[in-house]
Amino acid sequence: MNMKKPIIGVMGPGENPTKQDLKNAYEIGKLIAENGWLLLTGGRNIGVMDAANRGAKEAGGQTIGILYRSDKNEASEYVDIPIVTGMGSARNNINVLTSDVVIACGLAAGTASEVALALKAKKPVILLTDNQEGKDFFKKLDEKNIQTADTPEKVIGWVKKFL
Amino acid sequence: MNMKKPIIGVMGPGENPTKQDLKNAYEIGKLIAENGWLLLTGGRNIGVMDAANRGAKEAGGQTIGILYRSDKNEASEYVDIPIVTGMGSARNNINVLTSDVVIACGLAAGTASEVALALKAKKPVILLTDNQEGKDFFKKLDEKNIQTADTPEKVIGWVKKFL
Amino acid sequence: MNMKKPIIGVMGPGENPTKQDLKNAYEIGKLIAENGWLLLTGGRNIGVMDAANRGAKEAGGQTIGILYRSDKNEASEYVDIPIVTGMGSARNNINVLTSDVVIACGLAAGTASEVALALKAKKPVILLTDNQEGKDFFKKLDEKNIQTADTPEKVIGWVKKFL
Amino acid sequence: MNMKKPIIGVMGPGENPTKQDLKNAYEIGKLIAENGWLLLTGGRNIGVMDAANRGAKEAGGQTIGILYRSDKNEASEYVDIPIVTGMGSARNNINVLTSDVVIACGLAAGTASEVALALKAKKPVILLTDNQEGKDFFKKLDEKNIQTADTPEKVIGWVKKFL
Repeated sequence: MNMKKPIIGVMGPGENPTKQDLKNAYEIGKLIAENGWLLLTGGRNIGVMDAANRGAKEAGGQTIGILYRSDKNEASEYVDIPIVTGMGSARNNINVLTSDVVIACGLAAGTASEVALALKAKKPVILLTDNQEGKDFFKKLDEKNIQTADTPEKVIGWVKKFL
Repeated sequence: MNMKKPIIGVMGPGENPTKQDLKNAYEIGKLIAENGWLLLTGGRNIGVMDAANRGAKEAGGQTIGILYRSDKNEASEYVDIPIVTGMGSARNNINVLTSDVVIACGLAAGTASEVALALKAKKPVILLTDNQEGKDFFKKLDEKNIQTADTPEKVIGWVKKFL
Repeated sequence: MNMKKPIIGVMGPGENPTKQDLKNAYEIGKLIAENGWLLLTGGRNIGVMDAANRGAKEAGGQTIGILYRSDKNEASEYVDIPIVTGMGSARNNINVLTSDVVIACGLAAGTASEVALALKAKKPVILLTDNQEGKDFFKKLDEKNIQTADTPEKVIGWVKKFL
Repeated sequence: MNMKKPIIGVMGPGENPTKQDLKNAYEIGKLIAENGWLLLTGGRNIGVMDAANRGAKEAGGQTIGILYRSDKNEASEYVDIPIVTGMGSARNNINVLTSDVVIACGLAAGTASEVALALKAKKPVILLTDNQEGKDFFKKLDEKNIQTADTPEKVIGWVKKFL
């Protein structure tokens, strides 16, 4: 018996996300919920994390946040299950180990570390970003486990193939 | 707005639990679910962890397992949300930081580390064990945050006071 | 070829140590250095950690500090090699996994978690404390790997037997 | 008083390093030792880690290894101080937080995660690799904290500027 729902990780910039990143994150969160999957993020109340959680909650989904600090104060109000690590960026590895598929929605330093840790752990990763250098680099790093997509719908199409 | 459900951590021996520990863990898991709280454990498919998760699931609750290894193979079949840390016993600190109240059901070395880490983090802890030396020691360590109880029902009574 | 020096961990209260704990920690640090071993502590500039590091440095030894926070500001000035974890109390597990022998000099909540984690990892532990409840509890938990001693010299005698 | 020696981190592929990566790592390890700095690596007995440690030891330096597993068996024989984390790739964050300057000698997935975590922590990073996509990506990510160099000597030149 294994009734566990798939856990889909959405990573992306907390600080200085683009408007498009936020729009994409909201849509992806919504689609994850509509597919009956669990959403996992870094859980903070800013940027891509907050937007994805809001999307998932507005579509009736359930959300897990793997928090950076040692208390719950920084959690997005749209996180149902705050996991408090107190480990700073070392928690990024938990984000990717726990996710069945990792989606990067935008690419800043923290997100790049999550993409790289996911590839190290042989997890499938989907990039939704206009950062061409990032796409070129990560594709070169691991052609097999990286896919790129240019809309939230296409991202979800890849998730379905990977599950 | 904060609609997060309380998260109640149940810690206890994975290996060589007593029959009473397992019975207590099952009952506590059941009562946690019946109260509408989330159950958190170390998530493994053995001992107190497995028994508490089974109790919670049979009462229709939801369960979180903070796993020791870097994959999900060791997870109890009664864990809904497996969080994969790959950190070994360092994950014990995540168990207690994430729990609003910590219950120790039996006391082996790993459980003792969780009780101590919980007290370090100023979390309320309830001990259900016949290990008198353990009760004496932890009460001396922090009279304020430690309570003892001798039945699952009394444990839950203390949880309600702490929430 | 293995020329690695033994690493001896000294754990103890950072806040509110007793005068005797501090005196013992200083002596133990000194004796560790005089035996040519490396001293490992939690690295902070307070309590037992600071005293042990000072003892080791004044005897010409070398000291490793496994720091709690994400920068070096909290390090004792007597730490030669500050390892910055940014993981809070989860770093306690690194303290014990890295130590060949663990010494507890006094017993507060953090120290108790380190003793328990050390026993979980099957590391030898020596307790130097007048906390009788603590000694009774940990001896019951693992008779084989726990020793008690009542002077720094006797602690070092046990370390030699364990190495 | 702060007599702590600078700690210079050298990251790079454990598996499938190029011959040039290994040659560079050995030279960089040697130069770090000759400058009186401490070398920090992921500590394993393979690839860039092992080569850098060998270089440093042959030049009389001292070496720290932040190990992946929960025992010392995987440590390079050229590591003086093995820090045992048992945390898998989550230890990559400790590597970069502990290093005053981070050098990437080659670029695989693990190394890429360390470069990204270093940038997240605002640490200076020097890349020595012929992976042009990697250089383009990380320079775009953080122009200020990334430098590239094409010989071990030029890498060390940058380290001196950063210290």
